[in-house]
Amino acid sequence: MSGFWFTEKNNDGYEVKWKINKILHSEKTPFQEIAIVDTQQWGIALILDGALQVSEKDEFIYHEMIVHVPMYSHPHPESVLIIGGGDGGTLREVCKHSSVQTVDMVEIDVRVVDVCKKYLPDIASDFDDHRLKLYIADGIEFVKNPPRQYDLVIVDSSDPIGPAEQLFTQGFYANIFKCLKDDGMMVVQSESPLFYQDVFRSVYGNISSVFPLTRVYLAPIPTYVSGPWTFTIGSKRYNPSHSINDSDTSFDLKYYNKQIHASAFALPQFIINMLGSGQAK
Amino acid sequence: MSGFWFTEKNNDGYEVKWKINKILHSEKTPFQEIAIVDTQQWGIALILDGALQVSEKDEFIYHEMIVHVPMYSHPHPESVLIIGGGDGGTLREVCKHSSVQTVDMVEIDVRVVDVCKKYLPDIASDFDDHRLKLYIADGIEFVKNPPRQYDLVIVDSSDPIGPAEQLFTQGFYANIFKCLKDDGMMVVQSESPLFYQDVFRSVYGNISSVFPLTRVYLAPIPTYVSGPWTFTIGSKRYNPSHSINDSDTSFDLKYYNKQIHASAFALPQFIINMLGSGQAK
Repeated sequence: MSGFWFTEKNNDGYEVKWKINKILHSEKTPFQEIAIVDTQQWGIALILDGALQVSEKDEFIYHEMIVHVPMYSHPHPESVLIIGGGDGGTLREVCKHSSVQTVDMVEIDVRVVDVCKKYLPDIASDFDDHRLKLYIADGIEFVKNPPRQYDLVIVDSSDPIGPAEQLFTQGFYANIFKCLKDDGMMVVQSESPLFYQDVFRSVYGNISSVFPLTRVYLAPIPTYVSGPWTFTIGSKRYNPSHSINDSDTSFDLKYYNKQIHASAFALPQFIINMLGSGQAK
Repeated sequence: MSGFWFTEKNNDGYEVKWKINKILHSEKTPFQEIAIVDTQQWGIALILDGALQVSEKDEFIYHEMIVHVPMYSHPHPESVLIIGGGDGGTLREVCKHSSVQTVDMVEIDVRVVDVCKKYLPDIASDFDDHRLKLYIADGIEFVKNPPRQYDLVIVDSSDPIGPAEQLFTQGFYANIFKCLKDDGMMVVQSESPLFYQDVFRSVYGNISSVFPLTRVYLAPIPTYVSGPWTFTIGSKRYNPSHSINDSDTSFDLKYYNKQIHASAFALPQFIINMLGSGQAK
């Protein structure tokens, strides 16, 4: 073993190591440690507080799935709020939808946006979109007094340690509920059901206590811990398990398609058992 | 970091490390290096030639998916051939089906069977089943002169290095085709479409050149490399994409259910593109 390796420690008994060709940038901000590295296998990657967030080569899976599943579950998504997501990948996918008229984005750490614009321009590609209003602010506070109501709120957070910790609480989800129109929905990344089972169950419980419809869907993400990764939707009206919006499919996608949409909601038996109830299709 | 760690090197730029409480057994056989370790996170695990094969805590995913998807796709699976699978997990799942009258199993290395019986008795639990005939032999040779014809052949191999290398070739699949009844099918584990894309594509091409129907399905397996893991079915008659066999669902499963069956065949767009064609549902 030679050269630099980035080690991500997922728990006391499990680590993943990626070979690093070059460390392109690192800094400590008031909120977190940011690093940009060039990995041998996954291209350039953003690391926050020691956890890989996005890599050039597999970011499409996470970003397509956190955006297009709820977007295609809503008949007319016009106003979208993104909380977190400073790398810009979620914004890029939202901007592909011509139905969208306004995107508010709230990122707490402007340095994430700055370094991603510089080092990951294919991900941070849509910060100039005319529909975007970017707030450098705390999402927790933002949802208490939002400037408008939304069709969709996307919580694109890092893990529930450091600045993102409050983004996994019932109080936060209750405020998002109030930000949403009467037929709006919310999606959050809800961690690994195997490595971070407590977080996953807690998020599911917290969202279920606020929203009438709660649905979990899955995608395996190579640069996150192995096994399925979860997303959880809280919805006021529409059941997100099937795509109902066929209005806008003119753009190329690398992961999402209509079969994947419906299939992602099929849960393995152990996850159904973990949640204490099945989820209707 | 203290104590023993098992490191699995998946390519030059990626490694996974599991903390080991204890090394329970290790030996070098004429075929491979066998180790049994007690991991901190995944319980007791079998390692062959430096690659983790099964762990107590997540083996259910691999074994349920390699067995029940083809079993439930066939209307009356009575005779089954297992090639490899010396740990016994695939055998255990096959034996759950009361429709099964004969199971032939061909494992090249008797020591895998022996150590799994001793250290992983909940996986190697069905070697005494009266329907089983265990052959300690080379699967490559076995399928040239099989003792009977089969409804289902399961190729439960390790990676295509060492003793399993020939189990990924067109010639081997062509012999399996001849072992199958007129409505039979074969399933193989076909590796990661991201980490071992060449193997995956090669297997798909080889099976497609032999069988009229070839279908890929996915499951994320925590102790294998991150992202989706693939299985590929070659079928003479039945389309395996949907469960058609409702005769025997009396046993508890932890991963497989009817929704998972159909959903596992939904492929992300990049895999459809990789294979050069979509797969009909």
